[in-house]
Amino acid sequence: MAPADPSRIAKLNADYARAIDDDRLEDWPTFFADSCLYTITSADNRRQGLPAGLMYADSNGMLRDRVSALRQANIYERQTYRHLIGLPAVLGEKDSSTIAETPFLVVRIMRDGRMDLFATGRYLDTLVEEAGALKFRERLVVCDSSRIDTLLAIPL
Amino acid sequence: MAPADPSRIAKLNADYARAIDDDRLEDWPTFFADSCLYTITSADNRRQGLPAGLMYADSNGMLRDRVSALRQANIYERQTYRHLIGLPAVLGEKDSSTIAETPFLVVRIMRDGRMDLFATGRYLDTLVEEAGALKFRERLVVCDSSRIDTLLAIPL
Amino acid sequence: MAPADPSRIAKLNADYARAIDDDRLEDWPTFFADSCLYTITSADNRRQGLPAGLMYADSNGMLRDRVSALRQANIYERQTYRHLIGLPAVLGEKDSSTIAETPFLVVRIMRDGRMDLFATGRYLDTLVEEAGALKFRERLVVCDSSRIDTLLAIPL
Repeated sequence: MAPADPSRIAKLNADYARAIDDDRLEDWPTFFADSCLYTITSADNRRQGLPAGLMYADSNGMLRDRVSALRQANIYERQTYRHLIGLPAVLGEKDSSTIAETPFLVVRIMRDGRMDLFATGRYLDTLVEEAGALKFRERLVVCDSSRIDTLLAIPL
Repeated sequence: MAPADPSRIAKLNADYARAIDDDRLEDWPTFFADSCLYTITSADNRRQGLPAGLMYADSNGMLRDRVSALRQANIYERQTYRHLIGLPAVLGEKDSSTIAETPFLVVRIMRDGRMDLFATGRYLDTLVEEAGALKFRERLVVCDSSRIDTLLAIPL
Repeated sequence: MAPADPSRIAKLNADYARAIDDDRLEDWPTFFADSCLYTITSADNRRQGLPAGLMYADSNGMLRDRVSALRQANIYERQTYRHLIGLPAVLGEKDSSTIAETPFLVVRIMRDGRMDLFATGRYLDTLVEEAGALKFRERLVVCDSSRIDTLLAIPL
């Protein structure tokens, strides 16, 4: 099987970002395969082989739990994100899944209107076909900076 | 009629941004249909159904008037913009026009060299074919933050 | 000969940025033709016809020397970049090479985790085919701001 087309990955990334930035967090787990891994870590941690420090979920159920927790805590309401996503690079395929890497930048907008450059980094993705749609089997979010706000609430 | 191809919309967005960022403001109205609507508002205002507070033009003539005013005021000379534009999402079609949404980020560069993250948000567009070219029938600029510089001068 | 396809230029830009952002600086000269020109200047300098003030290299050997110097100085280790690159606009062709322009934004991440908006601007490129690959004959980096950190070390 050929690896997934970069334009399909780009569209998936755009839809993923739009769901988060529109505060449709309930849609976020639907971009992942049933069996999946989602982590947020820093480039330094990754280089040193340390475990993902900022977020870790190894099933679709954990992603949904995360969203429920966010809705109950209501912390997310204080801020929104705006993702800008670069072109995906298809790096190869493994066991009929596609390996891709994509740079991103996220701006955070606080309730009072303040904006800041919240995070930059790259998505390291393993993509699979499930029922005719492209899904994330793995999405490892590697932030360039280690100094990520510990109140990190919304998924990147 | 099928909706416009995302790659054509992406090219239109890139040309639109380049005209503004190159200070070719006179070209800006040429990206719009003769009969058109251009507004700038905030996500909060839009959610509350309030009218577009930051800029409103409902004809191509008003866009051209806006450019003339900017040239006479010379305010625009103090700053330039740099747009970074995401992938357009085609949301559907209505009366043979295409509905699309596109995220953007604008950096402002002041005369003295200072740069700041000026605005992020999304373009809500209605696109039509006019004489073989794709044009904006409507471009609603929805800024994520409500705290936009009131000296807002150059179009986004 | 037709000008190079925008999607090939977009891929070249993405690979170029990834090499720099991944600290694979030794790969950076491989994106250029044997005979090449690479400069970094500001929009103001360019408008006034002044020579490129920030970096100048007119051969592939000079690019490689630059990388060696950076590795020896170890200055580059204190910071990394994250490029976000817009859609290339193909402006025409000249002597079987392609003329293109592409907007960019670069975030700088310091060792201690601080991030800042380092540079925005546009790449003015002349692209040629060499051994079946697209290469930069010329890459003129035009920064929007004249106030670029004089410690500028890593290529943009």
